Amino acid sequence: MANRGISVEVFTRATSSDQPPAAELAPGVLVRHIPAGPFEPLGRDELPAQLCAFTSGVLRAEAFHEPGYYDVIHSHYWLSGQVGWLARDRWGVPLVHTAHTLAKVKNAALAEGDKPEPRTRVFGEEQVVAEADCLVANTPVEARQLVSLYDADPHSVHIVAPGVDLERFTPGSRDAARDRFGLPRDAVVLAFAGRIQPLKAPDVLLHAAAHLLQRRPGLRDRLVVLVVGGPSGTGLEQPQALRELAVALGIEGQTRFLPPQPGERLAEVYRAADVVAVPSYNESFGLVALEAQACGTPVVAAEVGGLPVAVAHGVSGLLVPSHAAQDWAAALASVALRPDRRAELGANAVQHARRFSWQRTTDALLDTYAAAAHSFRNAVRAEVAV
Amino acid sequence: MANRGISVEVFTRATSSDQPPAAELAPGVLVRHIPAGPFEPLGRDELPAQLCAFTSGVLRAEAFHEPGYYDVIHSHYWLSGQVGWLARDRWGVPLVHTAHTLAKVKNAALAEGDKPEPRTRVFGEEQVVAEADCLVANTPVEARQLVSLYDADPHSVHIVAPGVDLERFTPGSRDAARDRFGLPRDAVVLAFAGRIQPLKAPDVLLHAAAHLLQRRPGLRDRLVVLVVGGPSGTGLEQPQALRELAVALGIEGQTRFLPPQPGERLAEVYRAADVVAVPSYNESFGLVALEAQACGTPVVAAEVGGLPVAVAHGVSGLLVPSHAAQDWAAALASVALRPDRRAELGANAVQHARRFSWQRTTDALLDTYAAAAHSFRNAVRAEVAV
Repeated sequence: MANRGISVEVFTRATSSDQPPAAELAPGVLVRHIPAGPFEPLGRDELPAQLCAFTSGVLRAEAFHEPGYYDVIHSHYWLSGQVGWLARDRWGVPLVHTAHTLAKVKNAALAEGDKPEPRTRVFGEEQVVAEADCLVANTPVEARQLVSLYDADPHSVHIVAPGVDLERFTPGSRDAARDRFGLPRDAVVLAFAGRIQPLKAPDVLLHAAAHLLQRRPGLRDRLVVLVVGGPSGTGLEQPQALRELAVALGIEGQTRFLPPQPGERLAEVYRAADVVAVPSYNESFGLVALEAQACGTPVVAAEVGGLPVAVAHGVSGLLVPSHAAQDWAAALASVALRPDRRAELGANAVQHARRFSWQRTTDALLDTYAAAAHSFRNAVRAEVAV
Repeated sequence: MANRGISVEVFTRATSSDQPPAAELAPGVLVRHIPAGPFEPLGRDELPAQLCAFTSGVLRAEAFHEPGYYDVIHSHYWLSGQVGWLARDRWGVPLVHTAHTLAKVKNAALAEGDKPEPRTRVFGEEQVVAEADCLVANTPVEARQLVSLYDADPHSVHIVAPGVDLERFTPGSRDAARDRFGLPRDAVVLAFAGRIQPLKAPDVLLHAAAHLLQRRPGLRDRLVVLVVGGPSGTGLEQPQALRELAVALGIEGQTRFLPPQPGERLAEVYRAADVVAVPSYNESFGLVALEAQACGTPVVAAEVGGLPVAVAHGVSGLLVPSHAAQDWAAALASVALRPDRRAELGANAVQHARRFSWQRTTDALLDTYAAAAHSFRNAVRAEVAV
């Protein structure tokens, strides 16, 4: 956005007293740290009590500018949508909202051990859907969910695929990447990257690997299952449970755990892998799948949420319609153990990922902002006419 | 307020689709039912997620009036204080806040089985204390708590005792009241009225009654312990636990439970009693104690919170510095079993309660509003000067 000459201000809750009230992240991108509650992280269930404080800080920030400075509000996640609703009323500018995840969708696809989203979030999401001038959906599936589950006006929903950082996630040497992590060059590497939580289902990859080793014991010395990621929220116990599962499955010798990796090292993880597995029970978009493909690595993904858009089945990877170990073992083997197929899918994957550039995302968002401004003006005219 | 020619608008969340957007409660008193979330009761932990929706409704209601219609905002309880903060910023009028209860005080005096108030409420209260132009404390104790625990500016804290409805709660015939509830005219009636929850400590009265019967078995045929009230919030199990306690103490034959009584019948409960017990572990004010006294019934109360203001020790009732059964048994007996003393305390109680009239409360609130307007104008002038 800033590269197109558009000023961006990001409002976020201050979580440390070190943070300045405003910081320039890049030319044209200002991050405002709004004091709202203590200077420390708050749990998601604790944040609603800070909605008024955060709103007060956002509204007061406008005093730094001439009235009418902002042209559009784009809120992300339902809590920000609530704040955006009040700012929209105050400033008289359109509200565009991206939900990112939806409580009704999450609750309909709960993995065992996942806590359902509270109904207060459902109410809050419904309100923001009703109030927003335009909604941004990451995928056609999410657009349909907004209409069917949240009663969104279909005309207000715009599909804008998130962008992948195609400068950071590029094809590169697999051997060099493996050297970096101390992985044998002749290993068969199956990778998972993401939060260690039931929804992301890293256990499916472990079960599939164990299944594969049962059918092909000869792979035992070459197979590496690489699990990259940390716990989600309060789930500190989950990585430990995953280690215990590896032991129980007899694949602790084949499984390697790494903490979350910063961007450049994450690209190396993808390059080091023969296949990246995305076995989630739900995924609004599936950024990991696109990042891996941008690095030239085929993806085997669950056929849920936005993943059928992110992965072109049989072209840039495979979609698996179940979470059964034998299905995943077969799909992973059909890519990872056939070098020619892996190479073809990998080359296609790079092309496929290029369709999800930041450039394209920015174009689509600007179209959405224009549509929201149009719809907002019409709504104001209709009110005046009444 | 309305009798003094002051227009009052009450904003409250709509909890039923039957409620009109605005209803005249009395001439000059308008109640606005703001849709914010579903038309049904929400739990206290669910309400923060509706803060923005409620604020939006309040701010939009102003559109019914000329700008500058409201002169002052008076918020009650911390959640409304959060909304009042935003409305104050928007309308440019002073914010007066009454906390009614304070989380830090409640948490410091938790009874066994009570759940502590969440820290999100503490943060929210701290913010409202910092933002409000004036704070209303019900008692000197509450004023000190606001200053010492919440860092309130002492000059911004005004002590305004809540009023008692002296038209409804009047002395009357004890015999007639006892007839109404089917209580023997010669009984010794010890009454409790309030929510059945650990904080209100109705169990202290039951233990005291059992103790009294041990020391004076001859009372067994005359003693009546009258417990009036329903469960608090989700504590549906608590009245049952109290019934079981009565059985365990062997006083089930002496104990009578009544559901919460509407105003006129509540006055009859007080008139029927020889003494009303208020054994709470904390009470910001103690309205029950004043209502009972206004009906001419002496009160035995715990020496906590605002109760030493509500009850004049040795004059209109007694204060007990502990919650021990023997102390309560002695205090209750010294009033209930001595008709002359009971009569004297009861007559004094009527006089004492007269000091807490609605008239007086209204005067004090109007003084507070004037002070808040003054302080607000000064704050605005200081900002302009900067």
